[in-house]
Amino acid sequence: MVTHIVLVECDDTKGLIHAITGVLFALGCNIENQDEFVDKDTNRFFMRTEIAGLVDSNVLIPKLVSILPPDAKVRVSVKKKKRIAILGSVEPHCIGDLLIRHKYGELQANIEMFVSNHESLGELATKFNVPFYYVPDKRANGDSLSREEHEAELLKILEPVNLDYLVLAKYMRILTPDFVNRFPNKMVNIHHSFLPAFIGAHPYRKAFERGVKIIGATAHFVTADLDCGPIISQGVVRINHAKGVKEMMQQGRNVEKIVLAEALRLVFADRVFVHQNRTIIFD
Amino acid sequence: MVTHIVLVECDDTKGLIHAITGVLFALGCNIENQDEFVDKDTNRFFMRTEIAGLVDSNVLIPKLVSILPPDAKVRVSVKKKKRIAILGSVEPHCIGDLLIRHKYGELQANIEMFVSNHESLGELATKFNVPFYYVPDKRANGDSLSREEHEAELLKILEPVNLDYLVLAKYMRILTPDFVNRFPNKMVNIHHSFLPAFIGAHPYRKAFERGVKIIGATAHFVTADLDCGPIISQGVVRINHAKGVKEMMQQGRNVEKIVLAEALRLVFADRVFVHQNRTIIFD
Amino acid sequence: MVTHIVLVECDDTKGLIHAITGVLFALGCNIENQDEFVDKDTNRFFMRTEIAGLVDSNVLIPKLVSILPPDAKVRVSVKKKKRIAILGSVEPHCIGDLLIRHKYGELQANIEMFVSNHESLGELATKFNVPFYYVPDKRANGDSLSREEHEAELLKILEPVNLDYLVLAKYMRILTPDFVNRFPNKMVNIHHSFLPAFIGAHPYRKAFERGVKIIGATAHFVTADLDCGPIISQGVVRINHAKGVKEMMQQGRNVEKIVLAEALRLVFADRVFVHQNRTIIFD
Amino acid sequence: MVTHIVLVECDDTKGLIHAITGVLFALGCNIENQDEFVDKDTNRFFMRTEIAGLVDSNVLIPKLVSILPPDAKVRVSVKKKKRIAILGSVEPHCIGDLLIRHKYGELQANIEMFVSNHESLGELATKFNVPFYYVPDKRANGDSLSREEHEAELLKILEPVNLDYLVLAKYMRILTPDFVNRFPNKMVNIHHSFLPAFIGAHPYRKAFERGVKIIGATAHFVTADLDCGPIISQGVVRINHAKGVKEMMQQGRNVEKIVLAEALRLVFADRVFVHQNRTIIFD
Repeated sequence: MVTHIVLVECDDTKGLIHAITGVLFALGCNIENQDEFVDKDTNRFFMRTEIAGLVDSNVLIPKLVSILPPDAKVRVSVKKKKRIAILGSVEPHCIGDLLIRHKYGELQANIEMFVSNHESLGELATKFNVPFYYVPDKRANGDSLSREEHEAELLKILEPVNLDYLVLAKYMRILTPDFVNRFPNKMVNIHHSFLPAFIGAHPYRKAFERGVKIIGATAHFVTADLDCGPIISQGVVRINHAKGVKEMMQQGRNVEKIVLAEALRLVFADRVFVHQNRTIIFD
Repeated sequence: MVTHIVLVECDDTKGLIHAITGVLFALGCNIENQDEFVDKDTNRFFMRTEIAGLVDSNVLIPKLVSILPPDAKVRVSVKKKKRIAILGSVEPHCIGDLLIRHKYGELQANIEMFVSNHESLGELATKFNVPFYYVPDKRANGDSLSREEHEAELLKILEPVNLDYLVLAKYMRILTPDFVNRFPNKMVNIHHSFLPAFIGAHPYRKAFERGVKIIGATAHFVTADLDCGPIISQGVVRINHAKGVKEMMQQGRNVEKIVLAEALRLVFADRVFVHQNRTIIFD
Repeated sequence: MVTHIVLVECDDTKGLIHAITGVLFALGCNIENQDEFVDKDTNRFFMRTEIAGLVDSNVLIPKLVSILPPDAKVRVSVKKKKRIAILGSVEPHCIGDLLIRHKYGELQANIEMFVSNHESLGELATKFNVPFYYVPDKRANGDSLSREEHEAELLKILEPVNLDYLVLAKYMRILTPDFVNRFPNKMVNIHHSFLPAFIGAHPYRKAFERGVKIIGATAHFVTADLDCGPIISQGVVRINHAKGVKEMMQQGRNVEKIVLAEALRLVFADRVFVHQNRTIIFD
Repeated sequence: MVTHIVLVECDDTKGLIHAITGVLFALGCNIENQDEFVDKDTNRFFMRTEIAGLVDSNVLIPKLVSILPPDAKVRVSVKKKKRIAILGSVEPHCIGDLLIRHKYGELQANIEMFVSNHESLGELATKFNVPFYYVPDKRANGDSLSREEHEAELLKILEPVNLDYLVLAKYMRILTPDFVNRFPNKMVNIHHSFLPAFIGAHPYRKAFERGVKIIGATAHFVTADLDCGPIISQGVVRINHAKGVKEMMQQGRNVEKIVLAEALRLVFADRVFVHQNRTIIFD
């Protein structure tokens, strides 16, 4: 039974694997699975090890750091469900899919709350006993809140929870860099196009106008650059000329929810490293 | 046995299919296959009919035009191999694939010539008895020719042949609008990315840097806007972080040659209409 | 606005499209979309026409029959949501997906009831206000019911409802030919393999043992031959050696629910003809 | 620069990776890439390590064996082009594809010879300066040779060459177990279906009759059981009702040649382990 996941990232040098496994061996850790990758362009080493047994991170991490190059990053993650919040707007297909997975143990996470700038999906979250928070982006008089004002409201709700990840399940507002930077490599978004094609709003409309024969969806970590963060997962579906924008959206929803769920499966299992706006995924 | 293909395009009005099939029926044409499509946005009707039997286009076309709205376009294409030329540079995979298909009757076209701005692939074309023309883009002294000068040389060779289509099989020079406009909807290019992502040079390098998880290729009609013409066919292949630019290129070549061949299969069988920078494909 | 769908099937003869569209035209029907196909092997003609406007089926059908070969089948389907029941067992992913689609108008059907031989998913159906019927396949004393006995109980519940389709969403009991024959081309099943590979029980276990590199799912009409009915939709996902049976099942569930939903989209829109254990699908 | 590939397979025990990398480290080998996998069901460990530098296999292998469990298999493969022969019959698409790849350095192998039971493709091999051997399966008087007689003729030609792999590129005769067993995990076949569906002859005809919506191809190691050997690579393509057997074959050829080439890429790079009729592929 895997109990911990050890994640090491450092500059590549000779003997790394031997040295790291030596530490694990000496501490009595049983290696259940191990993967390594060296990015040759940047001479960077990545390793993910699933171990079984009692491990004291306070012992293991310093031991590992002591034998690794000075720039090393070491994480030891206990194998358990992550704590997440979901941010959404009006489309139900992704949130609905996640709620079903959550209820039946398919999502390796506890959904602590669902937060939306619209009221309509509250009923759905509530059905599944997920706390729902409606954070309108307009004042009572109908005036729009500024992004900063709206995000301040969001943060009031999100910050008290100790979140591992924040999932944007078709959340239709652009977030400020300040907000994004509070969740580095911790915010996963699903974008309804095959990135980097059709960044921004109305990707299906753009796809239709461009006349593509395949549409897709992309799950990625959110960075301050809109739809430009590290890609975790992508999926596609073939379409033909008989599919208008509406039919593309319908077909696209099938892809979006699966791509998002796949990305979350990988992220929640600590299978994803981010390196230079790319992801290294051991799966 | 299908002998002719009738292609009709016009504004949609009530009773079109009945009227057109009435003309075909009255002339004794046997309909072997028929497809129609109406683009609702633009109220445009498209129809492709495969017929068997003796047909005199000089009779059929005016009859059809007489019963169609004034803006109608009618083509009657005799089912036969198309006359094509291929333009290439140094990469052998697409031209090699087409030469093999050509030799064994898989390409519904006769390759009248292979023309390249490099000498290296001449040997391959010659092996398959396809006339090869080397049209250098440099003078004897090493100075580059301007695009216009180079294209004038190309046209000296291409124009005497009565081409149905010109195929760019990894031809690595950008063509001038003037050249492109001589071959409206008659020039098919294979671009080594999933358009509209990664337009222009070095798409695999860009794909690597963007960290995409799926790469692709796109076959399209060439228009004056680089890589922006109507898309005929697209294909994709999944890649992972272990694939560098070189490995992406290797995987991509597999997709490129199949996507190009598929596009040519469709185009040479008169299965493709172009409408507003999109294609309508009956297959 | 499409109001009716006309479905014609008959032996192919010259002039069919002209004759049929003549009837439609004479009755003032506006053709919004039309598709035809001729199966050359069997000389069978299929046509699906979407029409707009007031249509009296009692007039249209006899008119069409009168001009068609004697073996013709003509259906006129009013465009509306189908009445369906879902049969399931213990797996929630397909039923969950259908319930979400149902609630948000993505399923072109009303789910009249969910019937299961297990009690566990009743809570889920009830959440979505779908009537749930638990029809145990065991007696109170724990003895199994025979198939015939169990099906008699099912039919008591299903027969009073006037169902258009019965959907097997991971229903894990084999049905008798007698039961199946009550729903000819009206019962859609999702099988968790890429048929005809891995018919019957435990397809993922068999796929793992065979060492396949791609797994899939198949939605098909149910016939008396287990997993051998006409295929409507199939989907696949790549897997690798690191995926055991459990991981294959997890990946497979993503495919199963989308393939089933796609099949239902096609069936509920009257896009599917069955011919000689194959489907002809206009989409 | 990778110079050698070390392949280790043994029962899993604690500390294996540490021990193996210790040997490599002590001998001054630079690990460029490493992959491991443990098959939990059978407690079997697999490791592939790319190393750079001077390595004496006569030193390395015994050192590794000495620290591994008694059942260990260790191979050290020098990174170089494999020596292969191709066996074919009449279909040119796979052999054509391999010849083009071979000529342009895309195939990590030297094709020592092309052997066929038909004469027709000799011209193609000869074009590419690949020695061609025609080994008819009939006597001069037209009588068929027995399999054993024919294979004896094949072996006269194949055995003097020191082959790494034998590739069946649409070779249309069934081989005897005796012949097959001479090339354990060294003979790669391309089968024109998505195995295990449609084993044996005429898979496209069977696929058509079954009405599948996706067809495929499978590359596998050949074992004495027809089409049942360990699968290396599979690919698929969607088809619809309008594709008859002939069109399926045309679409299938595109898949077959790419799937075969992909399998050979993996095999020739020593990326494939065989374990219990399954493959473990590090790619």
